[in-house]
Amino acid sequence: MARYGAQFGPDITFLGVRRCDWADPSSYAGADVVILGAPFDGGTSHRSGTRFGPQHIRQTCYLAQDGSRPSLAMRVDGLRDLSVFDAGDVEMFSGDADRSVRDLQAAVHAVTATGAIPLVLGGDHTIAWPDAAGVAQHLGQGRVSMIHFDAHADTGDVEFGSLIGHGQPMRRLIESGALRGDRFLQLGLRGYWPGPETLDWMAEQGMRSYEMTEITARGLEVCLTEAFAIATDDCDGVFLSIDIDVCDPGHAPGTGTPEPGGLTSRQLLDAVRRICYELPVVGVDLVEVSPPYDHAEITSFLANRVVLEALSAIARRRKDAADGTTWNPLQPLLDGR
Amino acid sequence: MARYGAQFGPDITFLGVRRCDWADPSSYAGADVVILGAPFDGGTSHRSGTRFGPQHIRQTCYLAQDGSRPSLAMRVDGLRDLSVFDAGDVEMFSGDADRSVRDLQAAVHAVTATGAIPLVLGGDHTIAWPDAAGVAQHLGQGRVSMIHFDAHADTGDVEFGSLIGHGQPMRRLIESGALRGDRFLQLGLRGYWPGPETLDWMAEQGMRSYEMTEITARGLEVCLTEAFAIATDDCDGVFLSIDIDVCDPGHAPGTGTPEPGGLTSRQLLDAVRRICYELPVVGVDLVEVSPPYDHAEITSFLANRVVLEALSAIARRRKDAADGTTWNPLQPLLDGR
Amino acid sequence: MARYGAQFGPDITFLGVRRCDWADPSSYAGADVVILGAPFDGGTSHRSGTRFGPQHIRQTCYLAQDGSRPSLAMRVDGLRDLSVFDAGDVEMFSGDADRSVRDLQAAVHAVTATGAIPLVLGGDHTIAWPDAAGVAQHLGQGRVSMIHFDAHADTGDVEFGSLIGHGQPMRRLIESGALRGDRFLQLGLRGYWPGPETLDWMAEQGMRSYEMTEITARGLEVCLTEAFAIATDDCDGVFLSIDIDVCDPGHAPGTGTPEPGGLTSRQLLDAVRRICYELPVVGVDLVEVSPPYDHAEITSFLANRVVLEALSAIARRRKDAADGTTWNPLQPLLDGR
Amino acid sequence: MARYGAQFGPDITFLGVRRCDWADPSSYAGADVVILGAPFDGGTSHRSGTRFGPQHIRQTCYLAQDGSRPSLAMRVDGLRDLSVFDAGDVEMFSGDADRSVRDLQAAVHAVTATGAIPLVLGGDHTIAWPDAAGVAQHLGQGRVSMIHFDAHADTGDVEFGSLIGHGQPMRRLIESGALRGDRFLQLGLRGYWPGPETLDWMAEQGMRSYEMTEITARGLEVCLTEAFAIATDDCDGVFLSIDIDVCDPGHAPGTGTPEPGGLTSRQLLDAVRRICYELPVVGVDLVEVSPPYDHAEITSFLANRVVLEALSAIARRRKDAADGTTWNPLQPLLDGR
Amino acid sequence: MARYGAQFGPDITFLGVRRCDWADPSSYAGADVVILGAPFDGGTSHRSGTRFGPQHIRQTCYLAQDGSRPSLAMRVDGLRDLSVFDAGDVEMFSGDADRSVRDLQAAVHAVTATGAIPLVLGGDHTIAWPDAAGVAQHLGQGRVSMIHFDAHADTGDVEFGSLIGHGQPMRRLIESGALRGDRFLQLGLRGYWPGPETLDWMAEQGMRSYEMTEITARGLEVCLTEAFAIATDDCDGVFLSIDIDVCDPGHAPGTGTPEPGGLTSRQLLDAVRRICYELPVVGVDLVEVSPPYDHAEITSFLANRVVLEALSAIARRRKDAADGTTWNPLQPLLDGR
Amino acid sequence: MARYGAQFGPDITFLGVRRCDWADPSSYAGADVVILGAPFDGGTSHRSGTRFGPQHIRQTCYLAQDGSRPSLAMRVDGLRDLSVFDAGDVEMFSGDADRSVRDLQAAVHAVTATGAIPLVLGGDHTIAWPDAAGVAQHLGQGRVSMIHFDAHADTGDVEFGSLIGHGQPMRRLIESGALRGDRFLQLGLRGYWPGPETLDWMAEQGMRSYEMTEITARGLEVCLTEAFAIATDDCDGVFLSIDIDVCDPGHAPGTGTPEPGGLTSRQLLDAVRRICYELPVVGVDLVEVSPPYDHAEITSFLANRVVLEALSAIARRRKDAADGTTWNPLQPLLDGR
Repeated sequence: MARYGAQFGPDITFLGVRRCDWADPSSYAGADVVILGAPFDGGTSHRSGTRFGPQHIRQTCYLAQDGSRPSLAMRVDGLRDLSVFDAGDVEMFSGDADRSVRDLQAAVHAVTATGAIPLVLGGDHTIAWPDAAGVAQHLGQGRVSMIHFDAHADTGDVEFGSLIGHGQPMRRLIESGALRGDRFLQLGLRGYWPGPETLDWMAEQGMRSYEMTEITARGLEVCLTEAFAIATDDCDGVFLSIDIDVCDPGHAPGTGTPEPGGLTSRQLLDAVRRICYELPVVGVDLVEVSPPYDHAEITSFLANRVVLEALSAIARRRKDAADGTTWNPLQPLLDGR
Repeated sequence: MARYGAQFGPDITFLGVRRCDWADPSSYAGADVVILGAPFDGGTSHRSGTRFGPQHIRQTCYLAQDGSRPSLAMRVDGLRDLSVFDAGDVEMFSGDADRSVRDLQAAVHAVTATGAIPLVLGGDHTIAWPDAAGVAQHLGQGRVSMIHFDAHADTGDVEFGSLIGHGQPMRRLIESGALRGDRFLQLGLRGYWPGPETLDWMAEQGMRSYEMTEITARGLEVCLTEAFAIATDDCDGVFLSIDIDVCDPGHAPGTGTPEPGGLTSRQLLDAVRRICYELPVVGVDLVEVSPPYDHAEITSFLANRVVLEALSAIARRRKDAADGTTWNPLQPLLDGR
Repeated sequence: MARYGAQFGPDITFLGVRRCDWADPSSYAGADVVILGAPFDGGTSHRSGTRFGPQHIRQTCYLAQDGSRPSLAMRVDGLRDLSVFDAGDVEMFSGDADRSVRDLQAAVHAVTATGAIPLVLGGDHTIAWPDAAGVAQHLGQGRVSMIHFDAHADTGDVEFGSLIGHGQPMRRLIESGALRGDRFLQLGLRGYWPGPETLDWMAEQGMRSYEMTEITARGLEVCLTEAFAIATDDCDGVFLSIDIDVCDPGHAPGTGTPEPGGLTSRQLLDAVRRICYELPVVGVDLVEVSPPYDHAEITSFLANRVVLEALSAIARRRKDAADGTTWNPLQPLLDGR
Repeated sequence: MARYGAQFGPDITFLGVRRCDWADPSSYAGADVVILGAPFDGGTSHRSGTRFGPQHIRQTCYLAQDGSRPSLAMRVDGLRDLSVFDAGDVEMFSGDADRSVRDLQAAVHAVTATGAIPLVLGGDHTIAWPDAAGVAQHLGQGRVSMIHFDAHADTGDVEFGSLIGHGQPMRRLIESGALRGDRFLQLGLRGYWPGPETLDWMAEQGMRSYEMTEITARGLEVCLTEAFAIATDDCDGVFLSIDIDVCDPGHAPGTGTPEPGGLTSRQLLDAVRRICYELPVVGVDLVEVSPPYDHAEITSFLANRVVLEALSAIARRRKDAADGTTWNPLQPLLDGR
Repeated sequence: MARYGAQFGPDITFLGVRRCDWADPSSYAGADVVILGAPFDGGTSHRSGTRFGPQHIRQTCYLAQDGSRPSLAMRVDGLRDLSVFDAGDVEMFSGDADRSVRDLQAAVHAVTATGAIPLVLGGDHTIAWPDAAGVAQHLGQGRVSMIHFDAHADTGDVEFGSLIGHGQPMRRLIESGALRGDRFLQLGLRGYWPGPETLDWMAEQGMRSYEMTEITARGLEVCLTEAFAIATDDCDGVFLSIDIDVCDPGHAPGTGTPEPGGLTSRQLLDAVRRICYELPVVGVDLVEVSPPYDHAEITSFLANRVVLEALSAIARRRKDAADGTTWNPLQPLLDGR
Repeated sequence: MARYGAQFGPDITFLGVRRCDWADPSSYAGADVVILGAPFDGGTSHRSGTRFGPQHIRQTCYLAQDGSRPSLAMRVDGLRDLSVFDAGDVEMFSGDADRSVRDLQAAVHAVTATGAIPLVLGGDHTIAWPDAAGVAQHLGQGRVSMIHFDAHADTGDVEFGSLIGHGQPMRRLIESGALRGDRFLQLGLRGYWPGPETLDWMAEQGMRSYEMTEITARGLEVCLTEAFAIATDDCDGVFLSIDIDVCDPGHAPGTGTPEPGGLTSRQLLDAVRRICYELPVVGVDLVEVSPPYDHAEITSFLANRVVLEALSAIARRRKDAADGTTWNPLQPLLDGR
């Protein structure tokens, strides 16, 4: 099979990293991370537009698209110190959620099977099902924990007559046995959904969901530390699923179901950094960036930086593991140069 | 079955007309026209967003939403001189084109079977298949001709691996025998799609497609008159399908696949008026209004007025038929009062 | 009384022309035209925002704001060949239509009494009442005819419990005797307002209203010529009232009650040119520019040019009257240089 | 009198709650809360557009408009555990502030007289005068304290020659004796208005105003606790008036007089929650949401959630009072299920 | 020298055509047309933003970016029936007009010297100087005529103290002898610039400028035919320079100096078609597309189509020359298939 | 030389303060602060548009433009308690960075030489070079320290082949000896630029750069206090350079190179306040406000307030120095009145 390329717009890669074809592992031999686009917005319950997420996340940056991004904070280059490839988009026909989900899982599984970390750019949150399931398919059912940033629990059962959709992926993952409910950590929930029945189901699964009230009262750092302990208890790896609507609409207006009262972009970046630096991340997705509702591209800029933050932290984690060093957030930028 | 209401936003009706449930004909007994919303955008090949079309077309008006709109030009009230009901939306899960199309056809057929004219608010152009097929299902295969305003022929075969989508409805209608290819009139085509193979297929079906070059050279009025003769030759009724992108992007920016060089809004309104006044229209759809790409709601305003123009002209046609009178476009507004 | 300045934003003048205080005629001695801002949007029935009209119309131009604009087409400088002053805004408290209207009429009357032409920048169309009434107050009741460009007749009686508002000024002008109904020319009407009762009242007054159907069928030039004959029959001057919504929303999105199917900006500019060149214009207002709904300032650009077109044509009319020459639209730009 | 409905757009209710007519108490018998729209923007000193506030606040939500919103944080359904009705809009002619204010006070008073809490959706802040005065008219002059979130003190005397306007309601309330100056708590003030004279007047009244400097230095929680003590000292109830511009423009761009440096949306939501949970709220208004200046509807989303936060906290307060329980912000979301 | 790529954003080509390096003719051997980006906006006198023109014009299309665009109207594929390459951008430092202009001329000249037609995507109109001068450098001073679509004459002398800028390129071209003043055809001029002195200079050069008044009065077709005769009199080729602001702001809002009253997009497309089909075009530039001021990308869509229209017509011209056939605008789309 | 006025738009002053001509010191005798506009955007590496910064910063305010702004927080009027003049713009031809920089330095130097503080409104950050150099030219090379708020270090060497540009001013200042590297304090840096080589150079200069990680970990207040000690060690004054992109894009979307994860607007205002109150500020610039990318003018509002915050704090510093008093941030607003 030949590389599919981009479903919408020109065939570009994430900030200029190398191209590959997910179906041809030789095209990304030795990859640490493989980026996949999943331009699907057929599963959203409100505003659409996330089909243009991959296209915008890949390129929304004011620097040269040269496959290099040295992080000031982490002192590594996430695109060069890791071997990062971009496999382009998996064709997602938004009018056929069933087929799209199936095809995406195959691609994620193929990438994971090579030992690389799949990093999937959505698309709406429907894709978290095939994303995490594809990883679990390789690493083992129930062997991967989930850290999930979102304003919404995404544990609905049937919506618009369908089991598949952006409000249901987390239920599908648990019901299918791909992930364990008691290794499912959610951060940033708030608002008025889901209702009691679904919350009861979540409690039964042993999920741990940090609503914004708790995060505000206890502090995000404390909640994260607590969550990390659960996530690494008897699991081999962590899947990180980031719905950009975990941020406040002021920081991320370009999304489908904005819920006021969320995290700042600074908080999200720092949390992603900690997770990817402190935990054995085996898969990542970043979803719900909807460019038609964005302004001055600020949501796309944020999403691009979330990806880079994850890659930088993973690179630094590997470097520190190799060098026996530790990253120090208190070190001034120019110290040690 | 109970009225479904609105899939997105509050449960409103077109400018305040009466509510009904399409599945319960007694709820719209004696209706001349029944409005249906089809908020589906899973079939678009580029920008999405048309799922919010019905919601915006129904209410984008600066006058009171009182179920009355006396037309200055036609001297009738399209919402009162006709019996117009709004059945709300047919549930359209954009992630399942197949089911959405099937359900919509059932609704359109049910409405048609009562003798009412279905007027469907899209949604992307995928819905033209079930719209016109639902009408033909009642009036007879091949007994209804099509007048189709669009920048695009929408006669593609397979797109993104699917037979269903917003680029293919016209092919499905002809291939299924619902409509005759040689009673298929297209106006406003332009640009760079489809390619020769598809054009050859269209020619084989005997379609008559007026590209903008011909319309500019000969005049829209002349082309329309010619098309009317074909449309009424051995057919019992006319289905009118209006893709708002037939208008120039300057007049209709809020759409998914804008193609420069189209009609003005004045031209479209006048053409719709002539068709609905001069021909036996049995079904109408209006598609591809994508509110997230609109500005100052100008595309929604236009779409709302296209609906009213159609209703006003149908009302005047019936009134003139009853009274033995004829509408005179040269009559000054205040003459005869 | 001292010059009030600008009600909103910095105290600027139209493209840099000289400042004056309308209450102090010595500050604009010898003026041909005095510009007044009327930033009132309390009378609109739908979108507000026209209070920022004067501010935007005055300055939306890409050339230096130097009080000079040589017209390519008319070969005169409307800002220098005429003596043009800008009196700033008349304070308009949008929450008190009654007082605002009264104060504006006083200002317009004061300007007219000096022999200058008042040119009022709205604001919503409520202001046409004091604008034309202020002129008639000086020139005589019934001695001034009206040419009115608009999508709407603005002849409503009571709206929201008030006799004053942007849908009623033309009725007030006729009912008060300020203007004669049979010297009232309307161009560009369309859509679904007002209803039959109001149209009957209009017919009784002898108004002549050109709906877009008639304009399209007969041609704008023909209609204008016909209207000119009526306007100059037994009247001493013409008041020109331009609602920017006479243009199609594609050309003028930034307005409160957009009605699709209107004039192009080219048509409006040419019509304003003919009126100001061929007729004895004694007052002008330009209303309903609503900057918050504008995009890329295109409506403000258009409004600025409508003002300049009027001034250029008035200047050329006076020059030709003095020189015994005639303007020739067929003359190439560089001929005669 | 019959229900007026919506002044602009279709006749909807807040997220689908039941309709009522404020003038007919039998239509909302047993109501805990009655929502009123006050679409008035004639009193604003700068940008207008708040007339569309009620329309947008009522419906800007991505969930079904089904009259139910179970709060994750408060574990109650503010729309079902309370009896909530929406009376539609009170007709507000923006060109007549005097009449609008009078009519609104009548409606608020009528609602209050039934024992229900009026919750008024503005409109500009002019309406706080009739809102709080209408409540005091029933509960007694000086018996209701005020908690007022705003960037501005709104204690101006005369603006644009009027005593009525969005910069003056708090002065009118105190001067009229409806509210006591020394039970008037303001939070979030900042910027460059009003000047010393007005501040002196405020000090004389014994007002307590928390400028952002103090809030930043001491913490919002500390300031609130202090304010609560004052508000409940010798008063029977609290009126809560929320100007959305208390939030930073990054969180609430869609407003008329944005002042940088404000609260986050999270802070506002938490503060409203505390007030409505801890204090005996007898009236609420939410003002200055100006949709034409909004982006991606983020300000309308926030406003919708502020209303829900208030209703959820009131519901929880009543439930806890009945059950003898206490809400615990530290309780994890899924605990106790 | 290696291909520079894209100055802003990812390194893409016009709708997916092949890449080349202008400095290495072997990389585009046999090319008919070579596209160059000139992302320069340092010469504009008002709004900037055209630096993003090349990036947007290259990709703003809803079809697959596959290097193929079969024209419905011209029945050729401008990207396949011609050999078209995209050389990427010439580095344009907007802060150094002098160097940018010099470097661009070198690139254009290099392309022209190979026999290919350079097609330059601006950038502001400053670049017309190096564009046409680079062509003349190869074909001979005074041997190339100019057809120039624009709202502005661009014949200024010194602006902001500089001889170089977007208001002066046409003067530089004539003064330098690159082009003859009496073979300089301008279409679409309007508004209030330049002043008499500059117009006198233009007349002295023998320029022929069609202001919109003349175009409206005589018809665009007539003016074009007249212009063609001049352009082909004693010249070897025609350079076509298209400023997108020749279109009305309603059709092209995304530009720096919009002037109301311009051409429709349909008129511009048809005019470009005629020129490229009927005349020996040797160079093209398309300038002043400013994406930050665009809405829904309508200006970029138009610009993309203007490029395709030019290429399609050139392809058809060459095909007809080879086949001895003639294109017939009256032929229906499906005739002859 | 006569006052140049405004390069773009009408000739206004910052919120209505008095006009002056920088080249004529008698026109601003006794000035404490002189505002200069530097509408230059030719040096930006990505989005342009900052040329309209001065125009927007000067007037984006909802209060009367009357040259008075009494600060609630500081209890002084920054525009009246200081003597503030606005010299208008220095002509900046964006196509000639070299000349623009030279001319701006001359103006800044002239102002500084009179003893006034220059406050420069950009424009892109290119202008920091002439701004600070012009101050040092008078006060002595190396005698002025720099406090620099920015997401970016702006210490690049050559960009797009030029030594001048918005990414390089800080290097130029240090290399030229105007400022000392070890008295150069940077706050807010983050993201992926510059690379190691440049960071090494910065370290060699002894610069102190607070990246957001350190600021988040230690707190902004602590970092500021530390920085103040360095800034005042063996220097005579402080230059404050504020790039608006130091704020998070949610608070300042209207800028050219937005980098997520920045300060809130509250933090920036408080920091500017402390600097101008606690340190001997001798020059200020505020750059990178790009109105075409702004929404609802929130970035311009913020910038306007940053200027006022600086002026208010300077005024209070001088007042307290004269009165022997100290400003107390804990004092309630109405206390002491």
